[in-house]
Amino acid sequence: MTRPSIPKGTRDFGQVEMARRNYIFDTIRSVFSLYGFQQIETPAMENLSTLMGKYGEEGDKLLFRIQNSGEKANLAPEKGLRYDLTVPFARYVVQHREELTFPFKRYQIQPVWRADRPQKGRYREFYQCDVDVIGSDSLMGELELIQIVEEVYRRLGIRVCLHINNRKVLAGIAEVIGAPDKMVDITVAIDKLDKIGVEAVNAELIERGLSEEAVQALQPILKPSEVSIQNSDKLANLRAYLANSEIGLKGVEELEEVFEKLSIVNCPLSIELDLCLARGLNYYTGAIFEVKALDAQIGSITGGGRYDNLTGIFGLPGVSGVGISFGADRIYDVLTELDLFPKSLQSSTQVLFAAFGQAELYYALGWAKALREAQIAVEVYPEPTKMKKQMSYADSKQIPFVAIVGGDEMAQNKVMLKNMSSGEQNLVELQELVKLLSC
Amino acid sequence: MTRPSIPKGTRDFGQVEMARRNYIFDTIRSVFSLYGFQQIETPAMENLSTLMGKYGEEGDKLLFRIQNSGEKANLAPEKGLRYDLTVPFARYVVQHREELTFPFKRYQIQPVWRADRPQKGRYREFYQCDVDVIGSDSLMGELELIQIVEEVYRRLGIRVCLHINNRKVLAGIAEVIGAPDKMVDITVAIDKLDKIGVEAVNAELIERGLSEEAVQALQPILKPSEVSIQNSDKLANLRAYLANSEIGLKGVEELEEVFEKLSIVNCPLSIELDLCLARGLNYYTGAIFEVKALDAQIGSITGGGRYDNLTGIFGLPGVSGVGISFGADRIYDVLTELDLFPKSLQSSTQVLFAAFGQAELYYALGWAKALREAQIAVEVYPEPTKMKKQMSYADSKQIPFVAIVGGDEMAQNKVMLKNMSSGEQNLVELQELVKLLSC
Repeated sequence: MTRPSIPKGTRDFGQVEMARRNYIFDTIRSVFSLYGFQQIETPAMENLSTLMGKYGEEGDKLLFRIQNSGEKANLAPEKGLRYDLTVPFARYVVQHREELTFPFKRYQIQPVWRADRPQKGRYREFYQCDVDVIGSDSLMGELELIQIVEEVYRRLGIRVCLHINNRKVLAGIAEVIGAPDKMVDITVAIDKLDKIGVEAVNAELIERGLSEEAVQALQPILKPSEVSIQNSDKLANLRAYLANSEIGLKGVEELEEVFEKLSIVNCPLSIELDLCLARGLNYYTGAIFEVKALDAQIGSITGGGRYDNLTGIFGLPGVSGVGISFGADRIYDVLTELDLFPKSLQSSTQVLFAAFGQAELYYALGWAKALREAQIAVEVYPEPTKMKKQMSYADSKQIPFVAIVGGDEMAQNKVMLKNMSSGEQNLVELQELVKLLSC
Repeated sequence: MTRPSIPKGTRDFGQVEMARRNYIFDTIRSVFSLYGFQQIETPAMENLSTLMGKYGEEGDKLLFRIQNSGEKANLAPEKGLRYDLTVPFARYVVQHREELTFPFKRYQIQPVWRADRPQKGRYREFYQCDVDVIGSDSLMGELELIQIVEEVYRRLGIRVCLHINNRKVLAGIAEVIGAPDKMVDITVAIDKLDKIGVEAVNAELIERGLSEEAVQALQPILKPSEVSIQNSDKLANLRAYLANSEIGLKGVEELEEVFEKLSIVNCPLSIELDLCLARGLNYYTGAIFEVKALDAQIGSITGGGRYDNLTGIFGLPGVSGVGISFGADRIYDVLTELDLFPKSLQSSTQVLFAAFGQAELYYALGWAKALREAQIAVEVYPEPTKMKKQMSYADSKQIPFVAIVGGDEMAQNKVMLKNMSSGEQNLVELQELVKLLSC
């Protein structure tokens, strides 16, 4: 019989990975709560009509479709697996709008599925962690999300820089260079600046139908982002550059207001105005963000922005919101690379009871009960088998202490406590053990 | 445009439901941890070859199949959605056996999908919470799972009775009445005793091919379970009844040993030996359990048992294990019916800042920051809009306090704190507020 396996592009998560993933999710979740965001969940399956046409032609192809059951088995599928959390969120808001309190602050941490070609770091099932506030155009939303980014990464110990730009600024740039209908082409091209360089971006812009003059006029913008230039100076330059574009100046104002709010709360996050940040998704209409880890080469680990019409696709226009998404898999990789996972995640079990005989095993049960009543996680090896085997169980589960119980220990109403890292052994009473493990 | 909806049999979970569901999952999870069980997760999709034939003919029909993507789109599906957590667990153990430490103690809390006809209380997507120890035939496993049941329901405040039986006892009964090949028929029939009564069960047994004599011999067993009869008396009677069945006596011994262990740890759970508990699933080979809520009519809210060959289906025979599954949806219904959810789940946000103007809003940002640094969840209403609107936001989110900020409050470096349930208002300083909300 061949060994069973799982579909390509999917993963099993073992105990160590789960402890680490839960550490990331719990950290993110507790920060979200601190800002009043509350969790929702949507079904894994959505009606195909909800999903189709929302992710472009390519996206439609990457939807996992579910065969109908029963009588409809031979008809075209009606359901597909969730492709992201944004479209189900928009659907949720429209469907439940009467029950919701606006501004509606929600977060959602669930897996999504894409029939992408699997490759290193790209999976067919992966988790997204989205946080959004919808139903308010106040830039307080941008502020809070930036504060959340700062707090999440501070708690995780990852040094990051947040790149910020504004879609209105990009629209203004397109206006100013005389190509107002080319904003999308411009953003797609300049998004690649870091990867392919100025020359190639210019060539692509020409190819996309921009005039030589327009490309020339764009050159002041096409500079790799530089931390050395202060955001306030960049904004001043931009204000001058966009002097003739109403929408462009609106974007500058929004950026200025966000920076002002950030200075009021004294946000210690490193933030960089990055005019070459474009983000592909076309529903963004205001601020856009991306977060990069400073000490790891891994691309963006969080991203998002403001949208003015996300729910319009489901018939509820004019609802503005702003949201970001934390990339759990990449955060996992950064924490692994930088060795930042807390050591205490290895085992929840504090002590393993290892008994020499049946009577000792029963004796250990009473101790285990008392320790658990003190909220200390313990295990009792289920059989009084060879001590070596019991020890190696503790070893491979990285349990820090083993409480050995033989006849002598029982007679004294104690256990022989072995520290598995130092090898030290001591006879201890129950109360001492509770005290030791409670700290 | 018609309002969007979700596939039938699926559910959205809003903020209140999620807070309640997380309360259940967190309670269960923390008890599992206390006993050294660690979490794993498996993919939503499994190869159809992993799933097919594991749930009977009916189960095969209820599998959700996923269309292949790309070139294979027109071929028969190769993947299906997880139907339960047991088969993926068996697949996981076989696939990863070299990496695991046995006895392997794992828990898993994930959704499963079934193409069942949706009806009240039956969904096409629902969560299971499974806990198993595999790779040991020690009855310590049974003991720990019973202790876990006791602790979970004590923490949740639900009074329960655990019904216990043993498949070996059922096999022994089939032997003793002269129908050793009819154990499955007998268990299927007597499983219905509570619902259809003795007469109907007897009729069904005859229909299933048992002789009149066999049915007659079975009568001492066919009594609705009675709490008034002590388990020890039941076991004594059973020992006499099964005197000529080796396997039956083995089952009695196992039950006796579990009761002995339970008395050693002084487990306060109400437990009843219930010879009419059979459980349909055929992989059980030893102890079987079901837990019923005493104060709600809802059927079993937890169930499980011992299996000696779960991994045999994937080519790894002879690995014994024992596991139980908590029914999150039913537990949710019981807690709702008995009004047992903690009131504190309503809102994580402790205080909403409501400002009269822009300057006041900026002022509130500093306070919010200080409170969050003290781990207090706060919100700032994003605009200095009408006070009535801000108040009604706090009201509908059930936020217990509103901190009102006007010019006077700012001048005094205070806020006007309104207790939303009593209506009481007090001017407070930042440190008072931190202190008040930290308790």
